Amino acid sequence: MPIFFDDTIVNQRPTHTLKEEESKHVVKVLRLQQGDPIQVINGEGYLFNCEITQASAKACELRILETIFQEPSQHYIHLALAPTKNIDRIEWLIEKAVEIGVQEISFILTKNSERKQIKLERLEKIMVSAMKQSKQLHATKLNEIVPFEAFIQEHPNGFIAHCLPTEKNTLTTEFSSKKPIIIGPEGDFNEHEIQQALQLGYTPITLGESRLRTETAALYAVIEANLTLRK
Amino acid sequence: MPIFFDDTIVNQRPTHTLKEEESKHVVKVLRLQQGDPIQVINGEGYLFNCEITQASAKACELRILETIFQEPSQHYIHLALAPTKNIDRIEWLIEKAVEIGVQEISFILTKNSERKQIKLERLEKIMVSAMKQSKQLHATKLNEIVPFEAFIQEHPNGFIAHCLPTEKNTLTTEFSSKKPIIIGPEGDFNEHEIQQALQLGYTPITLGESRLRTETAALYAVIEANLTLRK
Repeated sequence: MPIFFDDTIVNQRPTHTLKEEESKHVVKVLRLQQGDPIQVINGEGYLFNCEITQASAKACELRILETIFQEPSQHYIHLALAPTKNIDRIEWLIEKAVEIGVQEISFILTKNSERKQIKLERLEKIMVSAMKQSKQLHATKLNEIVPFEAFIQEHPNGFIAHCLPTEKNTLTTEFSSKKPIIIGPEGDFNEHEIQQALQLGYTPITLGESRLRTETAALYAVIEANLTLRK
Repeated sequence: MPIFFDDTIVNQRPTHTLKEEESKHVVKVLRLQQGDPIQVINGEGYLFNCEITQASAKACELRILETIFQEPSQHYIHLALAPTKNIDRIEWLIEKAVEIGVQEISFILTKNSERKQIKLERLEKIMVSAMKQSKQLHATKLNEIVPFEAFIQEHPNGFIAHCLPTEKNTLTTEFSSKKPIIIGPEGDFNEHEIQQALQLGYTPITLGESRLRTETAALYAVIEANLTLRK
């Protein structure tokens, strides 16, 4: 059954009118008609089983037949990373991280960052599409890019994956919910940044012996954290 | 330092002439000159530190200054999957799996496969590029697509990730080197295929609660196996 995202749909109302963009997709692209069933999610834990009552391409009207609510996950994975120069790699990462289940993604600006800005609008669309695909009912929070120092001051005691050869732990033994995992840029964090993080209680972590690209390291960390929380 | 792949370079010779394609890249693209240092890998564990002795775009000549050999990993991850309809997703998977470290990737043809053929030539190039990027000295073996039944008969006692709600184990508790991990197509394996695998000693595994795309499931399995072997 087709599944749509609309963050304006609310619980405890018998009907809903879809936004124009979604209405157009329902009527013009999928050519659904009055009486057809569709599902709508709002990113806040709700799944609505609906029936189309008026197939308008501008404002498609629905009757809500059933409401399903899923509690948010007790686990909380917060990934923070310096976005890569090539934005495709970040888009890919968002899709995969959302499929697997990540609650929050932050972008940080580091000394060696090649990309200094990021447009959240397109990333939000990719996030919504991955949510629909994997039937995640809770949206992943995406945060605007902030300087590295501001991020670690606001979120101390996290995990930092850097490439300098120092003593390191693993997420498998150390990870716990809510503590952010930060992944550096293509050229890694510089020594000053690593020192700043350590002073704010960050634990250095290793992601194995291989030299991983930024987005591969980020996904590796997400999966290792996910596995740790599943135990 | 720039790194090149040439599977014709052999140990215990003082010089080497690069293939035309690599020679062109050295001379025309990177504009390297006589005396410049380059590294060459051959995918069989060797890294050669070389110096350019003649910067010819057709047949660049090198003096081999140092030879480094890395033993193959004691661990062996063999991933087998039904390729996705969209080939970009497979190309992406190859890149990531090689970066993390996978020894063999097989392609299988299942009842629900949307893609029935695969061209290894382009995938080999992506594999080599990921090897160079992550300094893996051993090439990942890529195998031509074979029917599911033939594959499991030749490689019994592996792991199968399917979506039917049955009792399942995890790679974290069960994985051991060399046993293949098989990932189904977009529409999953059918019941007959799952039964065939179980009869040949396959262990059903779960990759968590989320509904993952084929290539995401494959990478999740590779990372879980890699983490299990690192312990």
